[in-house]
Amino acid sequence: MALIVQKFGGTSVADITRIKAVAETVKREQGAGNEVVVVLSAMAGVTDQLIGYVAEAGGRNNSPEYDAVVSTGEQVTAGLLALCLAGIGVPARSMMGWQIPIHTDDVHGKARIAKIDVDALRQCVVAGEVPVIPGFQGISAQGRITTLGRGGSDTSAVAVAAALGAERCDIYTDVDGVYTTDPRIVSAARKIDKITYEEMLEMASLGAKVLQTRAVELAMKSNQRLHVRSSYSDVPGTLVVDEDEIVEQEMVSGIAYSRDEAKITLVQVADKPGVAASIFGPLADAGINVDMIVQNVSADGRATDLTFTVTEADLERAVETVAAKKDVLEYADLVSDSNVVKISVIGVGMRSHAGVAQRMFETLAEKGINIQVISTSEIKVSVLINEEYTELALRALHTAYGLDAE
Amino acid sequence: MALIVQKFGGTSVADITRIKAVAETVKREQGAGNEVVVVLSAMAGVTDQLIGYVAEAGGRNNSPEYDAVVSTGEQVTAGLLALCLAGIGVPARSMMGWQIPIHTDDVHGKARIAKIDVDALRQCVVAGEVPVIPGFQGISAQGRITTLGRGGSDTSAVAVAAALGAERCDIYTDVDGVYTTDPRIVSAARKIDKITYEEMLEMASLGAKVLQTRAVELAMKSNQRLHVRSSYSDVPGTLVVDEDEIVEQEMVSGIAYSRDEAKITLVQVADKPGVAASIFGPLADAGINVDMIVQNVSADGRATDLTFTVTEADLERAVETVAAKKDVLEYADLVSDSNVVKISVIGVGMRSHAGVAQRMFETLAEKGINIQVISTSEIKVSVLINEEYTELALRALHTAYGLDAE
Repeated sequence: MALIVQKFGGTSVADITRIKAVAETVKREQGAGNEVVVVLSAMAGVTDQLIGYVAEAGGRNNSPEYDAVVSTGEQVTAGLLALCLAGIGVPARSMMGWQIPIHTDDVHGKARIAKIDVDALRQCVVAGEVPVIPGFQGISAQGRITTLGRGGSDTSAVAVAAALGAERCDIYTDVDGVYTTDPRIVSAARKIDKITYEEMLEMASLGAKVLQTRAVELAMKSNQRLHVRSSYSDVPGTLVVDEDEIVEQEMVSGIAYSRDEAKITLVQVADKPGVAASIFGPLADAGINVDMIVQNVSADGRATDLTFTVTEADLERAVETVAAKKDVLEYADLVSDSNVVKISVIGVGMRSHAGVAQRMFETLAEKGINIQVISTSEIKVSVLINEEYTELALRALHTAYGLDAE
Repeated sequence: MALIVQKFGGTSVADITRIKAVAETVKREQGAGNEVVVVLSAMAGVTDQLIGYVAEAGGRNNSPEYDAVVSTGEQVTAGLLALCLAGIGVPARSMMGWQIPIHTDDVHGKARIAKIDVDALRQCVVAGEVPVIPGFQGISAQGRITTLGRGGSDTSAVAVAAALGAERCDIYTDVDGVYTTDPRIVSAARKIDKITYEEMLEMASLGAKVLQTRAVELAMKSNQRLHVRSSYSDVPGTLVVDEDEIVEQEMVSGIAYSRDEAKITLVQVADKPGVAASIFGPLADAGINVDMIVQNVSADGRATDLTFTVTEADLERAVETVAAKKDVLEYADLVSDSNVVKISVIGVGMRSHAGVAQRMFETLAEKGINIQVISTSEIKVSVLINEEYTELALRALHTAYGLDAE
């Protein structure tokens, strides 16, 4: 008998009809001889409504009261699912973050889980009841309700699964798995059967919205197997597992993209110690996340061009922040552009395969697509190109790396 | 410096604009030099919506999950009011039933408060913060959320006030106090300045919906002064106090009525020991509340007529229950009628004034209104009459007892 944690998102619990369907899914898993623990999101739209109330009331998203208000959405679905389960003969009980308890730090609105007490959960399971846990919430050392930030229910599910040593953490979503690239753009995209945590992390942080980045990080840290699968069908989805579990690793697993990028170039910035710190220190202080950073050695040893990317929403503030330091940085010009897309080729296999980057550059060159910025990591090659070439680049790369469905 | 508990109902917190107005009311009370503790209902309509979800999910109103779901409405308004208070410079924090804690029994959906720990509340007040308490909820010895039943927020407020030894418990509603009778029917109705707990109890159980019966009982038991007042104006409302506080007690304080009555008469029922038990035992077992019961001594010592009243909703079941006992009761006929109204003249003063009942009977006789059933208590005379005479009777009695506004 294995213990399975099942997590259902907001569209899966959008109304009572859907919640009853979730109850049937839980019952099937139990009927297959497994012990089940469920983690739920709020009904789709409810959290946004509650956040709207808080904003109207003048509240900020780091306030304990924000958490007291927005955590109620998951409490409602947890109670309702427990009732629907009881209605089909599956004993169940809701267990709030403070009842388990799920201990977090006190960073309201973005709390991190410190420790999950598993005694009450285990007692519940041993007593033959399905614990139904509202995701996204915990309790601080001060005894106040905390929330884990948007998408925090994924994190709750993985943390609960890891704490209980679950065989699997099933993430039920409205897609049936993780794809080699966005199927809305590339019709030849294939569902990936198995993917490593590292790859999933790159996919997740690049816009494949099926899993929250923090949840994947946590799964990787605790070596918790995840199964991303559809709420609407029984077909197997994508397993997210440790690298060792994947016998024949393909060179490249997927192609991800992110349109939410903006590029800032400092032309002829002084090439002297401390310049990078004078740029990125103030940006960090302003809470602006910098993604790609590219600086070449300067030809003359006195000045160089420096390019970095931020999210589109942060562009204006980033430009202002850098411009305020013009006297220190002594740059000749500042150029910004939000009409760019980041395309990433991802795969742990590229560690052992030479030429992955080279094939990317060739493929793009063949299509006449100019590469503006390149950055690489151990399992990823990313390039920044003009946004209008998104579709062309994705299709060409998907074919070039042999990912197209037969 | 006095400690005041303020309770606001669902229409007073129906949206953020109203909640901000509540915050101003709290601030004014604090500005007058008082310490304030707030108890809130859910936004008008929200509890019904949540109850609807539970019903759709097949849940009953005595389930722990019912309580987990429906208690969220008050949690939302408590968090929002705390934010609105902070926004106008009044430090505040929400404190849920389980955080205080408010200990109750485990009768889910209808729990009774066992004990309120006041330490955390006092600490909060001493620290200069206004505790904002979601009404209606508590926690059972099993650590599960409980609710107190409909209108339970009044009870929460009174219990918190009593536990803290509050100077006053202000009940803010959408009417500006308790009236001598229903002003929608009798335009000469006057607001009552002071009323005793006993009188308020009779008024409340007879359809003057401003205060929940249980809350009045609790206030009486703990001698907690209540002030029923308007959310929309600053004029004094009605004080509900101990009899000793009322110096010049009027003979009659008010005239209440209840249309939700149905009458059952057993004609020529056997006049022998055990008959009443054979009637009312089964009714009690069926959960049917019986209100008035009238039985006369029989003329021949063998058979008598017996009349009792139940709520309209219970009429059909009550008739079935009694009919099932026909062989034991040996009655000649069973007559039922829901076209009746109960009119009650209420006043602690009638203890020391003879002739209160007599004046009622005379007044109704003068108007040609036939009295079907009479029942009296120490502070109340109730009669059952044909429902179509409701307005006529109320107006005539209101005048006869000198209650009309000048």
